[in-house]
Formats: sequence, structure tokens, C-alpha cells
Amino acid sequence: MSIDRIRHAGLREKVMSAGQAAEFVKDGMMLAVTGFTGAGYPKALPTAIANKAKAAHAKGDKFSIGMVTGASTAPECDGVLAEANAVHFRSPFQSDPTLRNGINAGNVVYQDMHLSHVEQQMRQGFYGEFDIAIIEAAGITEDGKIIFAMGIGHGVEAVKNAKKVIIEINAALSEGLEGMHDIYGDVGLPPHRKPIPIVGAFDRIGTPALECDADKILGIVLTNAGDRNSKFAEPDDVSKRIAAQVIDFLDHEVKAGRLPKSLLPLQSGVGNVANAVMAGLLDAPFEDLTGYTEVLQDGMLDLILAKKMKTASATALSFSPDALARFNENIEFLKDKIILRPMEISNNPELIRRLGVIGMNSMIEADIYGNVNSTHVMGTRMMNGIGGSGDFTRNGFFSFYVSPSTAKGGAISAIVPMVSHHDHTEHDVMFIVTEQGMADLRGKSPRQRAKLIIENCSHPDYRDMLRDYYDRAEVASKKAGGIHTPHLLLEALSWHQRFIETGDMRIK
Amino acid sequence: MSIDRIRHAGLREKVMSAGQAAEFVKDGMMLAVTGFTGAGYPKALPTAIANKAKAAHAKGDKFSIGMVTGASTAPECDGVLAEANAVHFRSPFQSDPTLRNGINAGNVVYQDMHLSHVEQQMRQGFYGEFDIAIIEAAGITEDGKIIFAMGIGHGVEAVKNAKKVIIEINAALSEGLEGMHDIYGDVGLPPHRKPIPIVGAFDRIGTPALECDADKILGIVLTNAGDRNSKFAEPDDVSKRIAAQVIDFLDHEVKAGRLPKSLLPLQSGVGNVANAVMAGLLDAPFEDLTGYTEVLQDGMLDLILAKKMKTASATALSFSPDALARFNENIEFLKDKIILRPMEISNNPELIRRLGVIGMNSMIEADIYGNVNSTHVMGTRMMNGIGGSGDFTRNGFFSFYVSPSTAKGGAISAIVPMVSHHDHTEHDVMFIVTEQGMADLRGKSPRQRAKLIIENCSHPDYRDMLRDYYDRAEVASKKAGGIHTPHLLLEALSWHQRFIETGDMRIK
Repeated sequence: MSIDRIRHAGLREKVMSAGQAAEFVKDGMMLAVTGFTGAGYPKALPTAIANKAKAAHAKGDKFSIGMVTGASTAPECDGVLAEANAVHFRSPFQSDPTLRNGINAGNVVYQDMHLSHVEQQMRQGFYGEFDIAIIEAAGITEDGKIIFAMGIGHGVEAVKNAKKVIIEINAALSEGLEGMHDIYGDVGLPPHRKPIPIVGAFDRIGTPALECDADKILGIVLTNAGDRNSKFAEPDDVSKRIAAQVIDFLDHEVKAGRLPKSLLPLQSGVGNVANAVMAGLLDAPFEDLTGYTEVLQDGMLDLILAKKMKTASATALSFSPDALARFNENIEFLKDKIILRPMEISNNPELIRRLGVIGMNSMIEADIYGNVNSTHVMGTRMMNGIGGSGDFTRNGFFSFYVSPSTAKGGAISAIVPMVSHHDHTEHDVMFIVTEQGMADLRGKSPRQRAKLIIENCSHPDYRDMLRDYYDRAEVASKKAGGIHTPHLLLEALSWHQRFIETGDMRIK
Repeated sequence: MSIDRIRHAGLREKVMSAGQAAEFVKDGMMLAVTGFTGAGYPKALPTAIANKAKAAHAKGDKFSIGMVTGASTAPECDGVLAEANAVHFRSPFQSDPTLRNGINAGNVVYQDMHLSHVEQQMRQGFYGEFDIAIIEAAGITEDGKIIFAMGIGHGVEAVKNAKKVIIEINAALSEGLEGMHDIYGDVGLPPHRKPIPIVGAFDRIGTPALECDADKILGIVLTNAGDRNSKFAEPDDVSKRIAAQVIDFLDHEVKAGRLPKSLLPLQSGVGNVANAVMAGLLDAPFEDLTGYTEVLQDGMLDLILAKKMKTASATALSFSPDALARFNENIEFLKDKIILRPMEISNNPELIRRLGVIGMNSMIEADIYGNVNSTHVMGTRMMNGIGGSGDFTRNGFFSFYVSPSTAKGGAISAIVPMVSHHDHTEHDVMFIVTEQGMADLRGKSPRQRAKLIIENCSHPDYRDMLRDYYDRAEVASKKAGGIHTPHLLLEALSWHQRFIETGDMRIK
């Protein structure tokens, strides 16, 4: 029974229906809502708010909210609210098809933001005070502390910052989650900040549950519903070849004495390819791996279960249905091997730099100079957002970007003359990996990188086109006064335009 | 006498001429050479190496070196070496006209790199061992320790990393520099890193001079020559208007209770406009300011002398001749108010984030969505490099980019549809300021930012052109499936192409 999860007697009296709780949410409010990559988001209240919005709109009344989450949520949260036209502002990350359409139609103001900036900006006060925090929890302790769900994200700051709090207690969550969280609430604001005392990726520095003034809690809603739990694609040949390149390179660095045999803490971005790299590590010649990531997916879970990875730190657990079952079955074994932190800690520049995290993220496209686009399709259409990729790329020890060399059956090249949107610059990206090969960009000029990326990473169908672009760009840029980074300014983005017009980047 | 600066008797025996010292430098060597923004670079040895290169080339022999510095040096270092075609690889930053031409002609491989990455990458071993470190010093202590010159930059890592060391002792430097440096050598490599124990911008965590095994020292060259000491332009009307915007905004934040009256530690980039902002602070309603910057220029010096700024931390001192005189005259007063650190500390993500540094940097151009180009003229020609701007922009509490709204007598707009090179992305840049006005980009979608930047920051001569671009981009992007960031892909960089072809971004 969900109610048993509320071990504080007084707080049991705050239980109410989602509809009742939604009454507290008024037009124009700013909400801080938990949720991170399909985990830890409220399951019932968003639908109740969406219904309220629809009813208001039917009467000709205005109703919409601003919403800052940890990262992406799910159809039952972002989806239902977007479908009801109930969101006017959204930050920092999303991946819901309906919300995405609203953003790309210009109906939702979307601030696509580095995750490590979110709690700091909330605390700084720039957004103003949040009206209500809506958070998912696995339970409430005897002394009224919140036990977070499958993720924390910005939940700690949400509870502290918001004037009021509504909690959803989800009985579908394993009770074994208790003790996995590490709530550290003292990052604060400058000029009063101290070092964050993490020196090993698995250091525990806080408490397992979050204190919250009972007076702040407007209501508690009981749910019993699974997280999004999308299925991952089985690693295909392309993904396996990408994974093999990454692993070969890391093995080379270990053999050269430049990396320990346990590597350095690994971050793995969201998606099938990143997940495949983790799967590839199962058979790799490394031992006692550690994770320091934002989302812990199937691949990393299996590394831990196989005792290939010792411990992992994340801000959220995002599993396929099968992996969730493995997680729940093995939770006693996993309890002292997985730690869940606020995303201000999981993505913190200080810690990513100190720990020397190896960042591995997917991309939409890279250009021949090593700039990476993580967010926009054909330059103008938002896909999901930058998420934490910039946090890890900018401050990590190594930064990998991985992608199949083509998409849409070959009609799109992941290696282009110039990316149509820049999320990670040539200064930040160290390694580009496709199934074709890998380019180590370190210590190289843009012109050297171009040769490497074209010859090693691009698909053979596009290689001659890229060589042709580069050769002509060099001639034109010489005339224009500098060939540090050769480009044809009017042609640099023409591949994307061709795709828009013909459905294919290749010249027919 | 320069020789008196070598207080260690044994090391006096290592004194030799620049020509003799240059004999140790062989074709193909990788050198780590101190120098940061025209300060702390060797004055005599580069010319001797250049002469050696010329002599070799005259005989038909190959002779060139790779060179990693702190940041930019001066004509007597980068200039003479580039003029002699003696440099085949250069990183991480430069600003010398002759070297720049070599880079833009494709003759020098230039890795334009975040300064905070340099020492870490050297230590990681990716470059291999450096053959020789050439460093400028103000003296050597009785126990053989190196007293650095007007800057440290990567000097500590250079000495530790290189197989051998050549020291130039410059008698033109104030002996009062002794004690100003803070050498902290324990950042190390992951997974063995500890927090860097700085919690206040002026915390001293190391020793004033650097130990160096005497056996490593190949020779000591005595010099007596000034640093580059470029004159700053007197703040003009445009600069003053830019400074006023920044100061007004900071004042507003203080009044709103979101910043302390002493603000947060200030970083100020290189150049006249950034210097003008510092000058503007002389009369601003703040007190007890602090600096945490990479280069300390005239403006910040004057803030300290005026007791408007309490203390400043930097990695180098880069003054005009007049300011240098003021510095030298007041060195006793300044000794406990200026601290010089390795650039791995001055630019460290951990510290910039913890301290909440307010970053203020110049730019070449920004686009209507808030992306900033700091490095390339018309997309292909390298100007100087990214330097530390990315370190402060990405991890600071606030990130300002400042520029006059036009250049070249109005022929170039600093606000363009799309920047021709991306160094700082829309996710990183918080404020754009020109003499026309300021745009606060926080919490806004790209489309909201475009309106703000066009209306507030662009020059009236270009405003209609920008509005027209934006309006047409919105229509085209809607057809292409998304208007999160509207663009006309074939026209986005056409302003730069027009300038290349006609010498003016405006349509005649």
C-alpha cells in the first residue's frame, strides 16, 4: 500500500487525490517538477493539471504554467501538459514528441540549458521564487524526510526553493531505493562556497533523505505506476564497431601508461550507441571500472551486475523494462554500488574536472573541424537539448562523441562541412567516433583535424563530397586572407538545405 | 646587476650567452616557453634560436620547433621565431602579427586551446615529454628556487615536465616581485586529485618560488629588457557606454539582493573595452571588489591603487608603460594585494565555479541567438585564439561579452545572423553588451534572445537588415519543420561573404 510508505503519521493526513492537488496549481505559476530522463517524474498530477487547463481553455480562460525539471520526463508528464497547451515556459531539457512539436512551432518558450547550471540559477534567484515543487518520492521517513524515487535531478533545490511542495509517493518503486540517495545540500552560492568534498567517484557526502518543513507540503498523492522504461535497441553491428573503437583507444592509453587499468570514472550519455559502448566494456580488458554519470542506463547496470564495474554515481536510473527487473531483483547487491546524487553534484564542473571523468556522448552531427551539434535537426528544429553533454565535454578528462556515420538510410551524413548548430566547439571535443573509425583531435590544427575526420570517420558515400568541399574551401579561404579554418561561407550549410529540399544530403 | 639575482652560488656558474644556450635547441624539439599576454616571455633566447634557424635554412637544413606557451608572447619571441620560419607547431594562444600570418597561410600548425587544459594535457603525457623549458624569471633564491617574472602561466608544469630547463633572468623586473607568486604544484592527475583549497579569491596555498633540480638547468641567460607593455587606448565614448551598461546591471543585481555589494570576483579579458569596464568601476557604487582573472591589466591595477579593489589574483601582469611604472613604484603597497598563480589555478573550472567568478570578455562578433566568436575573422582567418575566455564563460557565475556594435568604420557589424565561428555557444553566454545596449539572455528561448539582441545591441545601421533576416528565417524554418532557432541556411553567413567581396557587410 502506498500509504504505508508515509512513515510519518502527521503527513499521512495530507494524502489527497491528484485532482485535489491540482487545484493548488494556478495559471501563470512557475513549477519545479522532478524527472530525469524518464525517471522520477510525477505520474498523476500532470494529467490532473492538464485536465484543469483543458477545462479552463474550454471556458475561454487562460491557463498555462512554467516548468523547470531535472531533465526529460515522459508522455504522462511533458506529453499530457503539452497536449493541453498548458506549458508556456520549459527548461532545461525535454524529449517528448508533443512538447517538442510545441517548441518547434514556437508555442513553448524553451530554454535549452546546461544541467549543471540549473540549481545554481534557481538559487541565484533569477527565475524568482518557484510557486510549487512537484516531486516524485519512494516514501517518507518516520521523521518526515523525503526518500527520492529513481532519480534526484534538481529535486533538492526544488523543495528548498519552492514556496510549497506536492509529493507523489509511487508504490511501484522498490523500497530498496532507500539509502541509495546522497543528499548534499550545501553547495550554496558564492562567495560562501566550500570545496565539494568528493575525491572518489563513490564518496558519500550527505544524507539518504531530504528534510522538508511539513508546513510547506500542500498535499501528498499516492500513485502506483512505472517510469517510462523505454526499451533499448540491441547493439547492432554499427554500434558494436563504434564501441570497439572507443575500447581499443582506451586500451591503448592503458598500455601506454596514460590511464589506469580501471580507467577513470565513466560518463555515458543517453541513447542506444552510448549504451552499446557500455555493453562493449563487458568484454573489455579493464577491471574495477567506476561510473560518474548523470543517467545510469542498462549498459552500466549490467557492468555492475557482472562485477566489471565496482561502483557508479548518477543522478537518475533510466532502465528498459528488463533492466528494471534486474535492478529490482538485485537491489540488495546494488545498494552499496550505486549512489544517486543531485544533478548539481553529478554534473558539477568542479567534480568532473577533479575526478577526470571520461565523457562519452551521442551527437546529431560533427563537422570536419570537430564542432558538434547535439540539439538541432537541420539547424532550426530542436530535438531534445544539450542536457549534461556540455558539462562533461567541457570539464572532463576525455570527451568522446559517437554516432553512426549516416542516418535515414544514408540520406544524412553525420559528418558535414559545418554543423548546423554548435553545442560543443572544436576547443572542447577530443574524439569523434563512427563505425568507420576514430579521429583523435588533440594537439591538431583545424586543417589536420579535417583530414582525419574525413578519412577516418565519414561514410564512404560522403567522403569525396567532403574532400571536394575542403579542397575548394582552402582555395577560397586563402583568397579571403586565412586558411586556419577553411570554409565556403555560402556553401557551409548547403548540405542541410539540400536535405530539406530533396530529402537527401547527397547530390542526385 | 643581473648576476646578483642568482643568489645560489652553484647556479651562477651556469650563466651563458643566449647564443650558447640556443645551441641546446635542436631541430624538431618540443619546447615549453613561458609568456602570457606580453609578459614573462624570454627576451634573448628566441632571437638566438631564430638566428640558428636562419643559418640552418641558409645551408638547406631543416630547423623548426614546436612551442607551447602560457599565452601570447611578443615580437621578440613569437615574432622573431615566426619570421625565421622556425615554428612548426604552436599552442595554446598567440597574438603576434607575423606568427598569425604564418598560421593563416597554413605554415604553422596552431592548436587554439582552452588555457585551463594546457597543463593537464602536458601532464597527461599526450604531447610526449617536452625537450626543454625556456622560462623567464626575476631571480633565483639562495636555495636554487625560481622566482617567476611578471607571470607564471604554465611555467610550473613546464619546469616539471621538460627534460631540461633554460632560465632567463631579467634585471629589468622589479625585485619586489618576489613573494607575489603562489606556486601550487599538487593538482596532479586523476584519479588522485584532491580539492584545490582556495575558498577566497586571494587565498595563498603554495610557496613563493619553484624548486628545480639544478641538474636539469642547462644554462642561465642574463637579460635586461622590458615586457611588451602595449599602450591601452584611453576609454572612448563607445567603451564608456559599454562599461556603463555592465555597471548598471551589476548595480541592479546588488540592489535586488542577488549580488553582494563587493560583487563577486571579477575576471576581465584582454583588450581596450574590457580594460574600459575596469576603468568604469573606479566610479561605480561598489566596494571591496576582488579580482580572479588570468591577466591583470591597467584597469584592475588602478582599481587596487584606488583602494576600490581589495585584492586580485591573476596568472600574469600585462601593463602599459605608464601602468608598469605605477606598479613598480607601488610594489610594496601591492605586494599583499596581488597574487600570481599558475594558469591551471587561475583558470581552473573548479575554482571559477566555486568562487562564482563574473567573466567579462571581448568578442569579435555575436549572433542574434547569443553565440559568440572570439577567434576567427570572417570565419576562416585566425585572430589570436580562445585563451581563457571559455574557461570563465563556461564555469563562471555570470558571463558578459562586450564589443562596440560595429568595426571598420561601420563596415562590419558585431551582431550578425550567425557567427562565422563558434567559440562560446548560446548555452554559455549570458549577457551581450554593446554601446547600443545590453541583452540578458538568461531564461530565454533563441527567438526571444534574437529580438533582444537585435533591438538592444545591434547598430541602427544594421537593425533593419537583422530584423529582415530574422523574419524571413522564421518563415523558412517553419516550412523546414522547426522554428526553435530560425535560420536561412544559405544566407546565415552571407554577411561575412559580402564583406570579403565588397569590404562592407551592408548592401550597397
